[in-house]
Amino acid sequence: MALIVQKFGGSSVADVEKVRRVAGIIADTYREGNDVVVVLSAQGKTTDGLIKLAKEYNPNPSKRELDMLLSTGEQQSVALCAMMLAAMRIPAVSLTGWQIGMRTNSNYSNATIKSVGSERIRRELDAHRVVLVAGFQGINKYDDITTLGRGGSDTSAVAIAAAMHADLCQIYTDVDGVYTADPNKVKNAKKLDEITFDEMLELASAGAKVLHNRSVEMAKRYDVNLEVLSSYERKPGTKVRGAKKMEQAVVSGVTKDVNVIRFTLVGVADEPGVAFKVFRILANEKINVDIILQSLGRNNTQDITFTVGRADGDQAKELLLNEQDKIGFKRLDIDDHVAKVSIVGAGMLMTSGVAVNMFDALASKKVNIEMISTSEIKVSVLVDEKDADKAVQAIHDKFFGD
Amino acid sequence: MALIVQKFGGSSVADVEKVRRVAGIIADTYREGNDVVVVLSAQGKTTDGLIKLAKEYNPNPSKRELDMLLSTGEQQSVALCAMMLAAMRIPAVSLTGWQIGMRTNSNYSNATIKSVGSERIRRELDAHRVVLVAGFQGINKYDDITTLGRGGSDTSAVAIAAAMHADLCQIYTDVDGVYTADPNKVKNAKKLDEITFDEMLELASAGAKVLHNRSVEMAKRYDVNLEVLSSYERKPGTKVRGAKKMEQAVVSGVTKDVNVIRFTLVGVADEPGVAFKVFRILANEKINVDIILQSLGRNNTQDITFTVGRADGDQAKELLLNEQDKIGFKRLDIDDHVAKVSIVGAGMLMTSGVAVNMFDALASKKVNIEMISTSEIKVSVLVDEKDADKAVQAIHDKFFGD
Repeated sequence: MALIVQKFGGSSVADVEKVRRVAGIIADTYREGNDVVVVLSAQGKTTDGLIKLAKEYNPNPSKRELDMLLSTGEQQSVALCAMMLAAMRIPAVSLTGWQIGMRTNSNYSNATIKSVGSERIRRELDAHRVVLVAGFQGINKYDDITTLGRGGSDTSAVAIAAAMHADLCQIYTDVDGVYTADPNKVKNAKKLDEITFDEMLELASAGAKVLHNRSVEMAKRYDVNLEVLSSYERKPGTKVRGAKKMEQAVVSGVTKDVNVIRFTLVGVADEPGVAFKVFRILANEKINVDIILQSLGRNNTQDITFTVGRADGDQAKELLLNEQDKIGFKRLDIDDHVAKVSIVGAGMLMTSGVAVNMFDALASKKVNIEMISTSEIKVSVLVDEKDADKAVQAIHDKFFGD
Repeated sequence: MALIVQKFGGSSVADVEKVRRVAGIIADTYREGNDVVVVLSAQGKTTDGLIKLAKEYNPNPSKRELDMLLSTGEQQSVALCAMMLAAMRIPAVSLTGWQIGMRTNSNYSNATIKSVGSERIRRELDAHRVVLVAGFQGINKYDDITTLGRGGSDTSAVAIAAAMHADLCQIYTDVDGVYTADPNKVKNAKKLDEITFDEMLELASAGAKVLHNRSVEMAKRYDVNLEVLSSYERKPGTKVRGAKKMEQAVVSGVTKDVNVIRFTLVGVADEPGVAFKVFRILANEKINVDIILQSLGRNNTQDITFTVGRADGDQAKELLLNEQDKIGFKRLDIDDHVAKVSIVGAGMLMTSGVAVNMFDALASKKVNIEMISTSEIKVSVLVDEKDADKAVQAIHDKFFGD
């Protein structure tokens, strides 16, 4: 007997038939003798619908009131699922964020969890009930309702698993695990049985969006055993843990991210502190800069090249052009036809030749490497967007065979 | 400057245009310098829609989970209305039942209010915000969400008005006040400027459903000044108070109730205690009996005639037939083509001839009176259903002129 937290996303509970399937998974877990806590998102497109509705009342609604409105979606989900479980003769009780004592800061619409009460959930589990908790929501110190932002229900589930010292936190999604590459794009992409928290974080930041990074970071911090699995197929998914149990392949996965733009500041003075000035301006506005390259230009100038996320592109451009005199550069070149291709693997550091094999794979397919960046468990290259899929397939073939 | 509680029902906030109108009323009250607390119902048919949805998940959902689900409707209403007010530059904050400390018993789906916190509302009013409170909902001692049953938002508003010692509690509806008779049926029906709590209670029980009796009873107990008025027309409504300010007409109104059925137990033994037995059986199942008549029959037997509400008809019939031997009656006659016509007026007791005038009006139109019942402020007669409208008009003409 174990304490298991299960999280189902909006598409998994979109309608009565899907909730019936989810309730079946919950019922089986409960009948096996486990304590079961379930975290649900709002049904299907409910949240988007409520946001659209809000804008009819106020084109720019206050985040406090928006959170008040949006939190009803998850509350409806858990009540309906509790009814479905009762119809299957599984005792169940639904609880809101405030009812379980999900305390957050006051950053409405994107709040951070501060603490989770375990008392109410424990009492319900002791009464042999399945506990259904509305995800995505909490309350701040004023007892006002907050939401955790997109992907917040994953974070709710991990926070509850940490507070309850759960044996396992299962995140049910519409994919059946974490793959060595996007299975829709790369032939022979393989499902991973296990992956480390760090690898998972690098995969996410490299463009493979299975779990929200916030939830993985929290799982890592509190050492919560995660499992990513499908709500449609009854089979084991991918375990995400602190350390791998067995010997694993050196490389865990290959990913592609097209949501990047390359900026080049041409003709910057070759003086100390110039790069600092540039990145300070962007960091002040919370714009993340990824791959960075400094290269010598003509006449004692240099070029500074870096990538930013596509969503930050317009703001970054405006900020830099506004400060052109202060920074001192001749020209800003922007290229948004680039893609970042990465390999991720916790074993990479100890294994020589991984990066070389990657470059070899790209060369054999005549893919030009524009920029390179490495971290402890990741190697990323920037390539032309049109070469990206070919690059991923070539690298995958190299590391995972055919 | 006054503290005013305003309540708007579901049809008054059914869509964005209607909420805009309601927000206009609220904004004007606020701009006149008043502290304003607003209680809202769920929008339009939201509650019915959620009940229907629940039945897809469980044909017989638990009331605890149903309350969890239904309470989201009012939460959405208040959040949306707060957004609308903000768009009109009126500072507003929405609050749920639990946020204002609306404590109830645990009778899910039909809970009774035990206490209302004033602290949070006071704090928001002191910050010069309009306070929008989700009606119809509270929490019990387990911190579980309860609802107050149909008409519950009126009761929420009165309870808040009592707790806050409000100067006035305005109940906005789709009629513009309380009338001397149903204005859709009776020509020259007049709107009343004032009416007493007792008259209002008798009018409601006599079939004129403007305010739910629970809310009027609570207003009477805590001496809350009520006003019933229209959310569509900006004009004074009907004040409901403990005592009338000025001399008023003796009779306040004429009503018709067709939701009654007449039961006759024929051939009951003419012994003490028989009537008690009959009414005990019905009272045990919370079936209210209204007009009662005992009349002598043949051979030392009597007939007992009484009316019950239409909704209780089938159950009352079954209960009585099951106990036929124990009660001892020959036959049960049921007549559901009857109507109860009543006059209500606090001044009636002190004025002779009121009942006589009523009977005179009926006789002049050849309406046969089947049964009569009187209370301190009401005279009701049972007539054939087909004569009911004619009876109401005749009585109204008699008392309110033409």
